[in-house]
Amino acid sequence: MSSTEKTTLADNPALTRSHYKHFLKIPTRWMDNDVYGHVNNVVYYSFFDTVINDYLIKQGGLDIHNGAVVGYAVETTCKFHQSLRFPEVIDAGMRVAHLGNSSVKYEIGLFKEGSDQAAATGHFVHVFVDSSTDKPVSMPATIRSALSALQGSAAQAL
Amino acid sequence: MSSTEKTTLADNPALTRSHYKHFLKIPTRWMDNDVYGHVNNVVYYSFFDTVINDYLIKQGGLDIHNGAVVGYAVETTCKFHQSLRFPEVIDAGMRVAHLGNSSVKYEIGLFKEGSDQAAATGHFVHVFVDSSTDKPVSMPATIRSALSALQGSAAQAL
Amino acid sequence: MSSTEKTTLADNPALTRSHYKHFLKIPTRWMDNDVYGHVNNVVYYSFFDTVINDYLIKQGGLDIHNGAVVGYAVETTCKFHQSLRFPEVIDAGMRVAHLGNSSVKYEIGLFKEGSDQAAATGHFVHVFVDSSTDKPVSMPATIRSALSALQGSAAQAL
Amino acid sequence: MSSTEKTTLADNPALTRSHYKHFLKIPTRWMDNDVYGHVNNVVYYSFFDTVINDYLIKQGGLDIHNGAVVGYAVETTCKFHQSLRFPEVIDAGMRVAHLGNSSVKYEIGLFKEGSDQAAATGHFVHVFVDSSTDKPVSMPATIRSALSALQGSAAQAL
Repeated sequence: MSSTEKTTLADNPALTRSHYKHFLKIPTRWMDNDVYGHVNNVVYYSFFDTVINDYLIKQGGLDIHNGAVVGYAVETTCKFHQSLRFPEVIDAGMRVAHLGNSSVKYEIGLFKEGSDQAAATGHFVHVFVDSSTDKPVSMPATIRSALSALQGSAAQAL
Repeated sequence: MSSTEKTTLADNPALTRSHYKHFLKIPTRWMDNDVYGHVNNVVYYSFFDTVINDYLIKQGGLDIHNGAVVGYAVETTCKFHQSLRFPEVIDAGMRVAHLGNSSVKYEIGLFKEGSDQAAATGHFVHVFVDSSTDKPVSMPATIRSALSALQGSAAQAL
Repeated sequence: MSSTEKTTLADNPALTRSHYKHFLKIPTRWMDNDVYGHVNNVVYYSFFDTVINDYLIKQGGLDIHNGAVVGYAVETTCKFHQSLRFPEVIDAGMRVAHLGNSSVKYEIGLFKEGSDQAAATGHFVHVFVDSSTDKPVSMPATIRSALSALQGSAAQAL
Repeated sequence: MSSTEKTTLADNPALTRSHYKHFLKIPTRWMDNDVYGHVNNVVYYSFFDTVINDYLIKQGGLDIHNGAVVGYAVETTCKFHQSLRFPEVIDAGMRVAHLGNSSVKYEIGLFKEGSDQAAATGHFVHVFVDSSTDKPVSMPATIRSALSALQGSAAQAL
């Protein structure tokens, strides 16, 4: 959440928009700002699971209300390169780094509008489970197909 | 956020209460629950920065309103081993894994009341910066002293 | 959220702890603080629905996961008399002002620990509906009984 | 938050878009959904203070970081006519119902995209205070001018 981590940027392969395959615009909200005047670190993860679930619902047909399969977060991480603020619109970029049988690892980058350098980067691992038993299951074909489209490295037009 | 990651627990050295040196009780709230009936993954990080900042303010003398030094999150991560719910009280455990000149790496474990197995584990890295320039600075002596007390491995009595 | 509304306190019958029948302790969280260093106005309503639902679940047997009846908010209001902060523990007081067939009007007061003057007061109206049809239904007997106990004016011991 | 309050709509003068003078698009987020699959009642107020503060900053020149004057919420209310969901984009409408010397009362309506009937209506009262003393002050001329433009009843083009 500061400009102090510039030294870590070189270690991170996911710092530019071209790394991502799908983008969603997420405006910040008044209450996202914390006492230091920046978007609170916790809220970045809300941007992560918003771009992911928006895509799963709209492109993968995930039914969050009555579906037989739901996605559970099992591991998430975020590196904060630059602070975000309210008011501001964030471009949340997403790609699929690994697609397993029941799990998927997404890479996420958050960009300020007009900037090609990520303000934050991270990943998010979903395991798909049977909504009645909580046991891992193979992900539905519609979801697998939608996620497959986000593998590889060429960026989709914004 | 599910019981499906039991296989990952063996990789994680921070799964029991004895690993942590300081605990704070954090009750869940109604709105923490998401559509799947569990505490949303994002909220776990709110528990992380609540136990950390509560300690920095009360034990380290951090002045979040007018202090010359503030702590910025630069990297956080969480592994979700077990889902949390509302209503429930969480014991957030915290220890210091690395204490640098201007930065500190905390390890955090979240436990259900009465359970000795972490429902979630993760870490959080703070860099202390000058509140007017945003440049990293040596952390104040009161904060360093408070954080030093959370190093090592013997657990403080709850 | 400020001390500037003291003139409105005289209009408000619900300013002291003795007005309420049930209390729940709710600690503030780091991210509750907004850019002005106070708990954001939105978060007060989270304290409202937390004390209410905690009571409905524990005392009224409300099953939020699989119950045939759920409570929907239809109207809420809050007057902010004094700002809250992190870190701080709030005593959320609750009483039932009106108990209908399918609806209930709660009065809520939020108090700082050790203070007998409400930092915020408001009300919250729930309508109980059939969870499959969304149509109003008579509230279950266990809920009605639990809510009846919060009518009247003598305060329950904290 | 349900369709059960249709009977209350007749009492409410602020149910259509033409009542409002300024609109902001606010997409919902994954974590806005609560266990019942709707946007939690608390979050509606976040939409209220987001449209208000976005306008005050962009049109009124409010400086939330270093300004001499800040706006404190003193009273808010919301009637929930229809549930909102994720994913969905909300049109938050805003007008000024009363403009005092140091205070302003806003009326807010939340609309689903493509609908002319408000899903929620409410008001929000701000008092402007000196940021160092917390005492009410006359609002700055730039803010007064921006708010004056939202009085009256003819709707601004979206």
